[in-house]
Order: sequence, then structure tokens, then C-alpha cells
Amino acid sequence: MPTAKVHRIPTASPDDVSGLAAAIASGAIAPEGILAIFGKTEGNGCVNDFSRGFAVAALQALLRSHLGDAADEVCLVMSGGTEGGMSPHLLVFEVAEADANGASPALAVGRAHTPDLPSEHLGRMGQVRSVAEGVRRAMEAAGITDAVDVHFVQVKCPLLTAARVREAEARGATTATSDTLKSMGLSRGASALGIALALGEIAEDALSDAAICADYGLWSGRASCSSGIELLGHEIVVLGMSKSWSGPLAIAHAVMADAIDVAPVREAIGKLGGAPGEDTIVLAKAEASRSGLIRGKRHTMLDDSDISSTRHARAFVAGALAGVVGHTEIYVSGGAEHQGPDGGGPVAVILQSLADCARVSLPE
Amino acid sequence: MPTAKVHRIPTASPDDVSGLAAAIASGAIAPEGILAIFGKTEGNGCVNDFSRGFAVAALQALLRSHLGDAADEVCLVMSGGTEGGMSPHLLVFEVAEADANGASPALAVGRAHTPDLPSEHLGRMGQVRSVAEGVRRAMEAAGITDAVDVHFVQVKCPLLTAARVREAEARGATTATSDTLKSMGLSRGASALGIALALGEIAEDALSDAAICADYGLWSGRASCSSGIELLGHEIVVLGMSKSWSGPLAIAHAVMADAIDVAPVREAIGKLGGAPGEDTIVLAKAEASRSGLIRGKRHTMLDDSDISSTRHARAFVAGALAGVVGHTEIYVSGGAEHQGPDGGGPVAVILQSLADCARVSLPE
Amino acid sequence: MPTAKVHRIPTASPDDVSGLAAAIASGAIAPEGILAIFGKTEGNGCVNDFSRGFAVAALQALLRSHLGDAADEVCLVMSGGTEGGMSPHLLVFEVAEADANGASPALAVGRAHTPDLPSEHLGRMGQVRSVAEGVRRAMEAAGITDAVDVHFVQVKCPLLTAARVREAEARGATTATSDTLKSMGLSRGASALGIALALGEIAEDALSDAAICADYGLWSGRASCSSGIELLGHEIVVLGMSKSWSGPLAIAHAVMADAIDVAPVREAIGKLGGAPGEDTIVLAKAEASRSGLIRGKRHTMLDDSDISSTRHARAFVAGALAGVVGHTEIYVSGGAEHQGPDGGGPVAVILQSLADCARVSLPE
Amino acid sequence: MPTAKVHRIPTASPDDVSGLAAAIASGAIAPEGILAIFGKTEGNGCVNDFSRGFAVAALQALLRSHLGDAADEVCLVMSGGTEGGMSPHLLVFEVAEADANGASPALAVGRAHTPDLPSEHLGRMGQVRSVAEGVRRAMEAAGITDAVDVHFVQVKCPLLTAARVREAEARGATTATSDTLKSMGLSRGASALGIALALGEIAEDALSDAAICADYGLWSGRASCSSGIELLGHEIVVLGMSKSWSGPLAIAHAVMADAIDVAPVREAIGKLGGAPGEDTIVLAKAEASRSGLIRGKRHTMLDDSDISSTRHARAFVAGALAGVVGHTEIYVSGGAEHQGPDGGGPVAVILQSLADCARVSLPE
Repeated sequence: MPTAKVHRIPTASPDDVSGLAAAIASGAIAPEGILAIFGKTEGNGCVNDFSRGFAVAALQALLRSHLGDAADEVCLVMSGGTEGGMSPHLLVFEVAEADANGASPALAVGRAHTPDLPSEHLGRMGQVRSVAEGVRRAMEAAGITDAVDVHFVQVKCPLLTAARVREAEARGATTATSDTLKSMGLSRGASALGIALALGEIAEDALSDAAICADYGLWSGRASCSSGIELLGHEIVVLGMSKSWSGPLAIAHAVMADAIDVAPVREAIGKLGGAPGEDTIVLAKAEASRSGLIRGKRHTMLDDSDISSTRHARAFVAGALAGVVGHTEIYVSGGAEHQGPDGGGPVAVILQSLADCARVSLPE
Repeated sequence: MPTAKVHRIPTASPDDVSGLAAAIASGAIAPEGILAIFGKTEGNGCVNDFSRGFAVAALQALLRSHLGDAADEVCLVMSGGTEGGMSPHLLVFEVAEADANGASPALAVGRAHTPDLPSEHLGRMGQVRSVAEGVRRAMEAAGITDAVDVHFVQVKCPLLTAARVREAEARGATTATSDTLKSMGLSRGASALGIALALGEIAEDALSDAAICADYGLWSGRASCSSGIELLGHEIVVLGMSKSWSGPLAIAHAVMADAIDVAPVREAIGKLGGAPGEDTIVLAKAEASRSGLIRGKRHTMLDDSDISSTRHARAFVAGALAGVVGHTEIYVSGGAEHQGPDGGGPVAVILQSLADCARVSLPE
Repeated sequence: MPTAKVHRIPTASPDDVSGLAAAIASGAIAPEGILAIFGKTEGNGCVNDFSRGFAVAALQALLRSHLGDAADEVCLVMSGGTEGGMSPHLLVFEVAEADANGASPALAVGRAHTPDLPSEHLGRMGQVRSVAEGVRRAMEAAGITDAVDVHFVQVKCPLLTAARVREAEARGATTATSDTLKSMGLSRGASALGIALALGEIAEDALSDAAICADYGLWSGRASCSSGIELLGHEIVVLGMSKSWSGPLAIAHAVMADAIDVAPVREAIGKLGGAPGEDTIVLAKAEASRSGLIRGKRHTMLDDSDISSTRHARAFVAGALAGVVGHTEIYVSGGAEHQGPDGGGPVAVILQSLADCARVSLPE
Repeated sequence: MPTAKVHRIPTASPDDVSGLAAAIASGAIAPEGILAIFGKTEGNGCVNDFSRGFAVAALQALLRSHLGDAADEVCLVMSGGTEGGMSPHLLVFEVAEADANGASPALAVGRAHTPDLPSEHLGRMGQVRSVAEGVRRAMEAAGITDAVDVHFVQVKCPLLTAARVREAEARGATTATSDTLKSMGLSRGASALGIALALGEIAEDALSDAAICADYGLWSGRASCSSGIELLGHEIVVLGMSKSWSGPLAIAHAVMADAIDVAPVREAIGKLGGAPGEDTIVLAKAEASRSGLIRGKRHTMLDDSDISSTRHARAFVAGALAGVVGHTEIYVSGGAEHQGPDGGGPVAVILQSLADCARVSLPE
């Protein structure tokens, strides 16, 4: 029976893979068991964030030295932006053989890649369906049959560059936007709706091209999407609870209703029978509410032409969450289109469960 | 017997005084009772933050229309920077005649102005002593005789511009720095040490020019200092508990040991017999730890050449505190040199006390 | 016969009106002759640029002290952003009685204000027509009958805020965008097309809602538009040559084909019979080319999420123009939608003419 | 006899080496002849600019695939920051065997590496001497015996990080600063003075620790220094004219007295017998004048807390220079401490010379 391990490894720079290399060298991590690596890198998390690509290049070089071409199977999801006090780090998801007496159900990890997305599908139903199909394959890979047992789906999705738009136009196709920054939002939004579709959170007939990044009443409570210049398809990682897996780790999720709504996060940790602490792994989305308000009070994130609202939101939500768990090695990524309600977002917590978590799922 | 009122008024822009004007028009605030106004304005909180001066100009125009020249006595302390989800607002401190049956001791407010500071004193012992003398006068004005009853001292202090440095040099004087941004830190640091001196937190013989912005083991647990281009002396406001005042409001303070250390803040609110909530007034300092670490984990605030570390820190600490009190109309100001330990800072909370707060002071 | 004077006055901060006050006090400027004041202020020139409003407030207070309510007639067009080496300054346009022997035709100045624009007209034909009508009135005020004699039209136009969008939506109206930053571009674009319409550069039937900020093949070679939060209508100033005016000053214009196309500017100065120098007044627009290219080479302005492309473009074009005229007190404003060709822009130069400029107009 | 070739290759991203790879594949560049590669990359050019390291990693990987360990000899000097309209590109300096009938003297290229610099030497005379010694070796490698024939010296120098400061302090050593950003300036300044020492522009007894980044009356007219996190020693490239080399290319230099002083650049191009144009290679330094003035007029670069003054200065000076040569693929790097006079800087131009340049050196 498989067991999932999650290794949290600090990094000194975007291309610092020394910690991972050491863990492999010491035998703490078996490279062939690595399914996915998430990372927070210290760029701006926006268009010209080269820290993500730099990290991916360094990780790929290391993985290839151990795995050869099989390294390409590892999902690498770097999220730029460690604003506020967030600490750059890697989360290495490894599958190993479980001890005989491990608890089950336990944290399960599944992954999938989708084919390259034609640029004209980005931000439209073509992308929604491509992601949904990928999520279903990743669930299958994780041995999760009931979508209610999925607690987090991370998707790395592409963006449009001027060159990609021109390439599409040269073929006679029309892209949803020619604005690179806007394309990042559309790609995340369509990916999130693809997750919601796969998890049954939203029915397909409620979705349309027009709803993407427009009708924000539609959202997934378990989606996390990051767009990056370094890929053309999607890399999808599903995290959930499965009876096919055993081990000490468990996962739960919460939905923050707004940027300071930390009570559901405390509650999710409590459901796992744990207390917030140094070992708690936190995966969250953050964004500035489009209403311009947080609990009725004006925020200024959307009117700041010096700092992108995504950077503001990551710093702020990271502060709220770090105040709960008491450490700063948390994964808060920005751009939460259709990922949780406007201004809020999904949060997943992973920890050594002390509770009987035969079914750890929060009503939303 | 006097009573202190604190009015929290949202603003729609730096020069928006419509809320205050309406409160005066309705009789909710008597202009002649206004002692001080603190404000969070939406600039960058750094050198070229004109939102502070714009707010001061608008407030002065309104106050003069009611008070004439006496308007100049009102301490106006605008703190730039509403990063993350902070909401721009004013805190109007008013003194009125108390009801006969008001509780006492209660929140007390005192203020003082110091003479214009020669530029060559900025960031040196000359500034420390000028501020200490002002704090003592403000305590006296507040009817506070024991420094242990002081819970927050807000100082607005000057900075050096290229022109001010040239003016000093033309007189043959040498300034502590010719770097405007650095002068803001030195001014805040010297002011904080002046507060610590006045409150007996640090003995005078432990202080020296060389220690200012160098020996960060020296700090005040109740100081909050903001530097601005719009004044040449200091405006000082002391907040504390006094038996000479009565009324429903009480104040306590806490010292955050680092940027995510919110437990002492919860504790301070508890000591006042209250629970965190919409009405809790929060005054706090935030800064990036010079160590580059938060609880042993690296942060990137000091290495970010795109966003000033003060902006990162305000966003992050505001998130942590807003997560506690559940609203975003909080006053978190940056630049905490000698104001709390490295990377942490003083926090004051004001609320309607439900506890017997004959002596509300936290051991540090 | 009227004569136009242009006074270039440096400022030490956005609210510094001391230079203008001194000029009025010395008699160098007669306040009742002031038609318009343009200014470069040191904000970011984007949404949260409060330096413009701060400057306007300070100028209005000064003008009111001299002119009373008539001060409201003076067009105040503050353009935020002195990136690169641009030097903050005011350009005061004054009309006076000409000497008997002044040269004619000469620089002429006319102005107009338009009514408040309904938010749903912003960025649409309603705004185009409102501006065109205002330009025609301003030409009439300047005594210019032939549009070929108009060399520069400055329009200050409004923007949409979240509040203004909500107000329109509450009335059942739909705005062209709900994105504040985008609204600034739409407002500038529609205003520029309004100028082009009034000057006969584009026929009305070539214009439509759909063309605004979409078909950039449509542009004016003499338009300069700045949007600001501080007004709801338009302030329009027309600069040109008129036989009804006399005096030493003359104006010409050029169209830069791209950001480094300074040859036409040299040529325009030459047509006026002058040489570039300290006294040359330069009014220009700058923007990043949407093609992502300058003379076939990639620029990175549109992909920079740390600095708005408008700030990049102003700094760069200001460098090119300052290299020509040899001083940095030049007025380069950003956001050149429909103002010159993509990536280029109109430039006007004013100087003491040594040439016979019976008709100073450049073929485009 | 050797001949120098300079290949200017556009890049699509920091790690884009496809152009160089294609040139090698086509035989246009022989990899074993590559002496140095300069590059403009699109980061912020400040502390957290990972675009430089990313470019270096990609270039090293390509060079190693052709050269093996000898790739480490190639000097890679990436300068971050393509503000304004600058276009990211590589300049590949190659040495080849000259045609028999090539002109001589001609452009000559020499290089040297220095040992790792102890952190406590950074910004002090230890660094000055280390660089001077390296420059002398690079001149020798270029076959230049008279310093007057050196027209440009590019040095890539290290910076201090918090970790490097701690490492030095752990050894009981004291660094010149603990501020990373400041260390970049000190390193560039000391390197520039090392160049001036080697070229005889300044005598050694005029130099001292105290003068570095303090006495800006001391400067080199031919130095260009960039600091980066990716190296611990120095990489030095000397460009000049040598009778030991032949070929069509020639180099001259100019010193801009301030940010808009382009006349000497035109003059230098003229001395080479050429006209500014598409093929002109420009290497320049830019910085904001510490005086806060350009030709007596205030600039705001040093007071802008949103954008580093180095970014402002690069955009502005690049505009001025691109206006002269008519293209944007120019190499303007920031941080010009002791590199030219305050606010100005050295500029080198390389082009196919039409003049008899037996001795192309400009009196300064």
C-alpha cells in the first residue's frame, strides 16, 4: 500500500536545490518516488517573474541527474511571490511503500499532465474541459473515487505572451485576450472552473466562455491555480484522503470567506485532531476582493499602481495564516479567480492526524 | 472630570474629511475637544508619500474653519501605507466632560509639541532628549504620574531632505546622514529612544549617538514613531490610564516578539475584559526583522528592490492582526526602529473595558 | 491685441506654489490673466497618484486668494510622473495686452470646460463628442479659425472609480469598464479622438464606440490627454498660432513615429527659426508601443509587473527629448492612446520665434 | 594576427540562448573564440534580480556543451535592467584569425579573472587593488601596452548578502556594510577606482577606504562595473585599440557630464569616422546625480521609494542615447559610482571605422 510523504525544504534562492539534493543523498527522499514539487519562489508572481522558470530549470537538472527522462513526469509547480514574511521553500510530495501498520485512509497524491493548450482555448471552455479531464485522471492516479475526498487540486497552467497571441492570430485564431497579465487571470479562472467541474462543485451547463472571469459566484472550494510562462499544457496534482493509501498524514480543507477569515482554517486543523504548529503544512490562495471591500471596509489594493494587488493580497493573507500556524513556511499563491469566493479562497492543511479521519471533509 | 472619546472614521481618499465634517456638523464631535487625529493614508509610507501632507492640509483647513488658530494645537499624525487589506481611516481623539457615573481610571490622552529640531540633531541624542522632554509634558497633560500607566506614545517626527542637509551644511553643521530614506529611520529610532527614556524603560547612560539605529537591543515597548516631511519638530501624543479621567474606554498594550506573534495581543484584549471585535482599536508597529529571519525561517523583505521592506511588513503584520480582531480598520505603521524588539513591535488596544482595570499594565 | 506669455516655474513638491506666488507678488504675472496652468508633479501618474490633486488644491487656494470664484475658470492640468530626470514644474499660460509692435501671428491660447460626463459615456462616443464640442469652443476663444493653426490640445479628462461605476450601475447604466486603470486609458483615448474630430484629422463616420482604444490606426497628431480622479468633466486648452494675437512666442508641432524618433522635433524647432535650448518649452506624449517593439526590437515595458509601462515610457521619451533640448523641465505625459501613432506621439514646442511664421504648420 | 568580432544577438527571455546557439550552429561564431559575453537582461538590476543568474546558467550550459570546462574562462557579464525601451540582448566578443589585409590598429579584447574576494575587502582598498591587478593582466592579454588605448573596462563584481556578512563576522572580520543594496554600490565603486588606478587616471596615494563611495570627485572615464550575486571574485574585460590586432572594428569613448550630455557621444562616433546608426554598439553607465540636480534643475529619482533610482536613470539615459543612435539594443548599466562624474558616466562606442584611427583616444 502506498504512503505519502511531504518534505518541506527551505531554499536560499530560486535555483537553490541543495536541500533537496542533500535529502536525496542522505536517503531521506527516494528520487523515483517524487510525484510533485511545489515551491514558493521569491519573484513578483506576475508576468516578468523569472524566479519560477529559474527554479524549474534547477529542479529539472537535479531530477534528470537521478531519473533521466522520467524526471519530466514530476509536476513542478512554482508559485512566485513570498511577500510579507513568507519564506521561500519547496514542498516535495513523495510516494513510498507504507508500513504495515499505517493508518488508513491517509493522504493520497495523484497527478496528471494535459496536452499543450491551443492559445485560443485559454480562458475558455476548451481549457475548462481539458483541466477537468486531467483532474479526473489525477484522482484515479490517487486512488480517490469520491470527489468529496479531494481536498486540494493544484494546477499549473499556461499564459499568453505577445508571441503566442501572434502565433494564434497567424493561424486565423482569436485569443480571449492579448494582454499577458490578463491572460494569467483567465487561465487560472478557467482552470479553477475545470476543477470545480471535475469535483462536481459546478455543473457543466452552468459554465460558459462568458462566465469565465466574469461570474465570480461560480467557484471551487478546493482549487489552486498558478499560471506560468514555462509551460503550454497543465500540470495537475490532486491531494485528498484515500483508503488505498496509509500513513500518518491527513489533509483537510477550509474556505476563507474573505482575506481575514481564519476561523475555518483553525476549524479544519481541529477536525484533523491537531493543533496549529510548526509542522502544519498550509496551501492557500489569496486575492484582493473585486468589491474593493473587506467586511464592508475599503481596501486600496486594486487602486495601487505601484504594487500589484496580487502581491498585496499574498502578503496580507500570509500574515493572517502565519498568525494562526505560527510559522512562515506557508504556500500562499495569488490570483484566486473562481478559487473560493471573491476576496477569499480555499486553504488546505496537511498534518499528522490525531483524529479518526475516516472521512475528513468539511461542509462548505 | 475629563473623558476620552475615540472616533474611528473611514476615508475615501487622503484629503477626505467629509466624515469628520459630518460628525462635527451632527454634534457627534465637538471640534474644540479634539486633541489629536491619527490617520492611515494610502501612500507608500516612504519618502515620496504625499498622501500624508495632503491629508494634513485638508484636516487643517477643516479644523481652522472651526477653531481658527487653535487648530494648530491639534496633533495630526498621518501614517502612510495601507498595504494588504488595511483600510484608510482617521482616529479622532476627543476630550469631553465625563458623565458623573463614569468608570475611573479610564483612557487618558495628553499631547505636546516640541520646537523645531536642528537638522544636525536628527538621529542623535539631541533628538532623544527633545522627545523625552516632550513625552513628560504630554504625560503631565494627560494626568498620568506613573510611567507604568502609559500604554502608547505616538510621535510624529521630521526627516532630512537634500535641502535640509544643505541648509545645515551651509551653517557648518554635519547631519547624521544625507540619505533621506535613512534619515526617516534615524528620526524614528531617536524618537523611540526618547520615549523609552521618558518612560524609564532605558536609563540615559545606556544611550548614545552611536547606539541609535545600531544597538537594537535597546527598545521601548510602548513607542510608535512616524516620520514625515511635513514638520520640523515633533508632535507627541501619550495614551494611558489615569484616575483623573473617567469613561468607558480603556487601553492596554502588548509587545509582539516577531511579526506573527499575535498571542500577546489576544492576551492584552483579554486583560481589558473584552473580546476582539469590530470595535477594537488597534495601534501597532511593523518592520522586517534585520536578522532576515522570522522564527528561524528566511524572509525576503530586505532583499526586495521592488517593494520597500516597510510596505511588506505593514501588509504582513496587518494581516496577522486583522486575523485576530476581525476587521481591517487598524493602524499599523512601519519603521519600528527601537520600537519593540527586532522584527516585532508594540501594539496598543483600546476598547470598552468590561474588566476592573484599576491598573491595566502588562509585565513585559 | 492679446499676447500670450508662458512662465515655466520649478516646484519643490506637489503643493509648492511659492514660485507662482512670488511671480504674482512681483508683478511678473497678473493673476487675472492666467488662463491655464499645466504641471508635472512627482506622483506615479497612475490611479493612486495624489500628487495631482494635492497640486490642484494648493493652486486653487492661491488663485482664489487673488481671484475669488473666478479662480475656478483657470484650467489646471497636472500630469503625474516625473520619471527619469524630468523636473517638476508649472507652465503658467497668461494672456496680457500686447505691445503695439509685437509680431503677429503669434502663440494663442484658448480654453473651455465641458459639463460633468456621465460615467457611462466615458470611453465612448458620448465622450468623443463632448470633447470635440469643447475643443471648438476653445479654438474660438483663442481666435483660431482654421484647425491647421492648432498645434496642441491639452485635455484633462475624468476616470472611473469603483464608486463611480457603482453609482452608474445603480442608475441602470453600464460603464465601458469597471477597471479603474483601464478607464484612464479609455478616457484619454476618447478625448484624443474628440480632438481629432474637432481638428478634422478624422471624420466622424470613421469613429465608433468599438474603435476607442481598439483601432489605433486612428489618431490625432496634436492631442495630449491626461486623466485624473479630481474632475468629472473636461478641461480643454488649445494652443496654436493666430493673427488675432501678437508677441514673441510661436508654437509648432511634430509627431514622433516611435519613442526615439527625435528628428521631427529638431525639425519643428528649426521651422520656428530657433535652436533647441534652455528656453524651449516641450509638451509631449509618451507610451509603450503595443506591438512590443521599437524599430523591430523588443521592449519589455508591457511585461513589467513592477513598474507601469507608462512610467517606463515617460522616463525613456523624456530622456530622448531632454537630449535634444538640453534641459529637463519638459512636460512629457503618459498614456498616448490615439495620440500619435502606436508607440509614438505628438510633441509641441514653444519658443521665441526667429522665423517668419505666418503659417507654422508641419505636414504630417 | 587576431581580429575581434562583436555579435549583437537579441534575446526573448533571460535564459534565451537560442540565438547564440544558432550562430554557433551556422558557423557564424566559433565557440572556442568567445572571450566574453555581455548581456542586458530584463530584471530590476538590483538585489533580487534573478534574471542575471538565470542568463548565466543558460549560457554556461550552452558553452559547456561546446567547450567543456574551458567554458568557465568566458567572462559572462549580465547587466540587469532594460528599463524604458532598452531591448534585451547579448554582446558576444569573439577573437578570430584576421584577414591578411585587415586594418590595424583595431579593436582588441582582453580578459582576466580575479580570485574570490574576502567579504571584508569589498568596498575597500583590498578590492581596489585586486581589480587594478586584474585590469593590468587583461590589458596584457589584449596586447595593449599604453593605458591611453583602453576605451572601456567592464568589471563584474560581487556583492554582500546577509549570509556573506554573517560568514565574515563569524571569522571576526568586519564588512564595510551589512546592507545588501549598499554593498552593490560599494563594490562597483571600489572596482571603478581599481580601473582608474590601473589606467593611471588616479594615483594610488589619492585613494583610501574612506574615499570609496564618498569622494565622487575621483572617477574613471572608462570604467563600467556591475555587481551581481552570482560570483565572488571579479570578471574583467578590457576593450581598446591595439596594433597587435587588425580588423574593421574600432572603439572610442566619451564621458557624459550629466544624464543628458549626448554631444560627446556624437563626437566620439564622429572621431571613428562613422555616423550613428543601427550597427553602432553602445556601452554606457547611468546613475542619478547625487546632487539631486541635472543642469540646475531638480530630479526626483533619489526620493522615489517606489522605483529604485538606478531604474529611473537607466531608462532616462537609454532614451537620450537611443535618440542619438536610433536603436534600442544598447547596453546601459546602472550604478555608476566613480564611473564618470556625478550623474554622468562613461560611454564607449564600437563601429566599423571609416577613419584613420591610428590613435583613437579622446582627451578628457
